[in-house]
Amino acid sequence: MSAAPGALEALIDALRRLPGVGQKSAQRMAYHLLQHDRPAARQLAQALGHAEQAVRHCARCHTFTEAEVCATCLDPARDARQLLVVETPADQAALERSGSYRGLYFVLMGRLSPLDGIGVHDIGLAPLLQRAQDGVVDELILATSFTAEGEATAQAIAQALRPQGLSVTRLARGVPVGSELEFVDLGTLAHALADRR
Amino acid sequence: MSAAPGALEALIDALRRLPGVGQKSAQRMAYHLLQHDRPAARQLAQALGHAEQAVRHCARCHTFTEAEVCATCLDPARDARQLLVVETPADQAALERSGSYRGLYFVLMGRLSPLDGIGVHDIGLAPLLQRAQDGVVDELILATSFTAEGEATAQAIAQALRPQGLSVTRLARGVPVGSELEFVDLGTLAHALADRR
Repeated sequence: MSAAPGALEALIDALRRLPGVGQKSAQRMAYHLLQHDRPAARQLAQALGHAEQAVRHCARCHTFTEAEVCATCLDPARDARQLLVVETPADQAALERSGSYRGLYFVLMGRLSPLDGIGVHDIGLAPLLQRAQDGVVDELILATSFTAEGEATAQAIAQALRPQGLSVTRLARGVPVGSELEFVDLGTLAHALADRR
Repeated sequence: MSAAPGALEALIDALRRLPGVGQKSAQRMAYHLLQHDRPAARQLAQALGHAEQAVRHCARCHTFTEAEVCATCLDPARDARQLLVVETPADQAALERSGSYRGLYFVLMGRLSPLDGIGVHDIGLAPLLQRAQDGVVDELILATSFTAEGEATAQAIAQALRPQGLSVTRLARGVPVGSELEFVDLGTLAHALADRR
């Protein structure tokens, strides 16, 4: 069929491997790139090739970086006694934007998800254990998501690290800033009441 | 910031140029590709590069093809007296899947959209005029979308081509197969009633 030559079909197949992109979106993307924005196609091909070659994990905190150790881990102005554990670089970026944290990070690059076959050994628990016992870190702040999987991950980390004499804390649960109480879910309200200060 | 090195930022920026992809989706895609599916990143980079080089427009019908003239236009089994006008290769593919059309196509690769600054000269009206007057085509079937823009496009084509002595028809408007009348919109019902047969 003329509407689906080899190169176009291959492009649609490759776009479908992106998360959240189905057949129709992939078709629309391929059509847009080839008909209206070929420079974007070239730019994306180059960016993919370069990132795939250049981006690796920081040897200390596991986040994405192009160097052996990332700039945050190398920053002498940051408080090396605090280590904050997040699931992804996007979570780390959100915390950085809040401007309220000056310690260091450890990025799990995942979370426990037994249903998807992701167990304790598949997330970087051994490297985190090693990292947390450098003799400088004295507080581990667990900032995994407040979902069932994120809570299970935090639980597993706390169990592994409390025996090492580290103070292990968790981000506060409570009512989001700007919320009207009426519309806050009951579990959050219960936590906000229990953790009142 | 360590979480956003150059290559990763460049990849997120490039992904954002895809239609329907915002900052969060682009971050999620980049994270997925780099953390979980680097082969997909390589595959997509190659497919983009290849398609960008290889895919061009059929000299006769303007659809995407890798040859000078696409396979549909070259197919001697198709009825060259009918020329069906669609907006995109995806529309053409949908009609092909219906299995009910054996004539040839012309793909506009767009439609009139005055609000976006897309006028009569930006869609391939001149090539269509030329294509339709090859002496073989005797019926032009307008299969642009049944939206305000698609209707305006069909109108403009009909005005340009009726004087050339061609029979110009439009896909039937009516109740979709499988619909319950109760849930069909009033405009469609009015058309279905007016065009009853």
